[in-house]
Amino acid sequence: MVFTPAERAYLAGQRLGRLSTIGPDGGPQTRPVAFRVNDDGTIDIGGPANAATRKFRNILERPQVSIVIDDLMPDAPGEIKPGYGRGVEVRGRAEAVTVAVSPVAPGFFSTEVIRIHPTRVISWMLEREREIHARDV
Amino acid sequence: MVFTPAERAYLAGQRLGRLSTIGPDGGPQTRPVAFRVNDDGTIDIGGPANAATRKFRNILERPQVSIVIDDLMPDAPGEIKPGYGRGVEVRGRAEAVTVAVSPVAPGFFSTEVIRIHPTRVISWMLEREREIHARDV
Repeated sequence: MVFTPAERAYLAGQRLGRLSTIGPDGGPQTRPVAFRVNDDGTIDIGGPANAATRKFRNILERPQVSIVIDDLMPDAPGEIKPGYGRGVEVRGRAEAVTVAVSPVAPGFFSTEVIRIHPTRVISWMLEREREIHARDV
Repeated sequence: MVFTPAERAYLAGQRLGRLSTIGPDGGPQTRPVAFRVNDDGTIDIGGPANAATRKFRNILERPQVSIVIDDLMPDAPGEIKPGYGRGVEVRGRAEAVTVAVSPVAPGFFSTEVIRIHPTRVISWMLEREREIHARDV
């Protein structure tokens, strides 16, 4: 299992991730993206005209990527204080894949997606305050 | 001027950015961070025990960074539809700077900060729908 049940539940409830790719100059570039976690633990990144984007061309040249999905703890009963940060960062190798139907917004987003194969997962504050998990997967 | 008035106003109202640095393996790493835009257009990134973090050590080795500050347009009267994404990405060179008082959370965050000197700014949807600005600065 790439993700714990708590990580998977958190990821399923979030709308945006921030994807970092390496640009032609070797420096990072960071964009907000829509994403979906697949059953096998890979993550698909969609978007309109996805294959024409800089990030798509970036991963064809250099497949190392990182995506962070995080937010501030909302007001809710529980152990963790509202306003604390929580989230998941996934590092891995990206590949360009053409799917039959866009995983994120069928009919609106491209069928070309960026698929991330995770190699490292870091998550924090999903279940308990000050708790961080970091592991190679 | 590094930032337009609309960009500066937007950045002043946001609490979190996502900072990408290059790790030891040459791949990107992405973390949520607190930030402040200085009058001269540089951006200071703060945090508790900041100098001990992986991102701080990363920028000492490789100063190329990217930070994205973005959110989904809230429900509000205006020209842009609620739910649309908007934001600013700043790419640039980072340096480690020790300041007298933490710019973000005085007394709680370290006085060691990551200071970004912007070289490229991309902003979208801050003033009008589908409008994107991208420029070297």
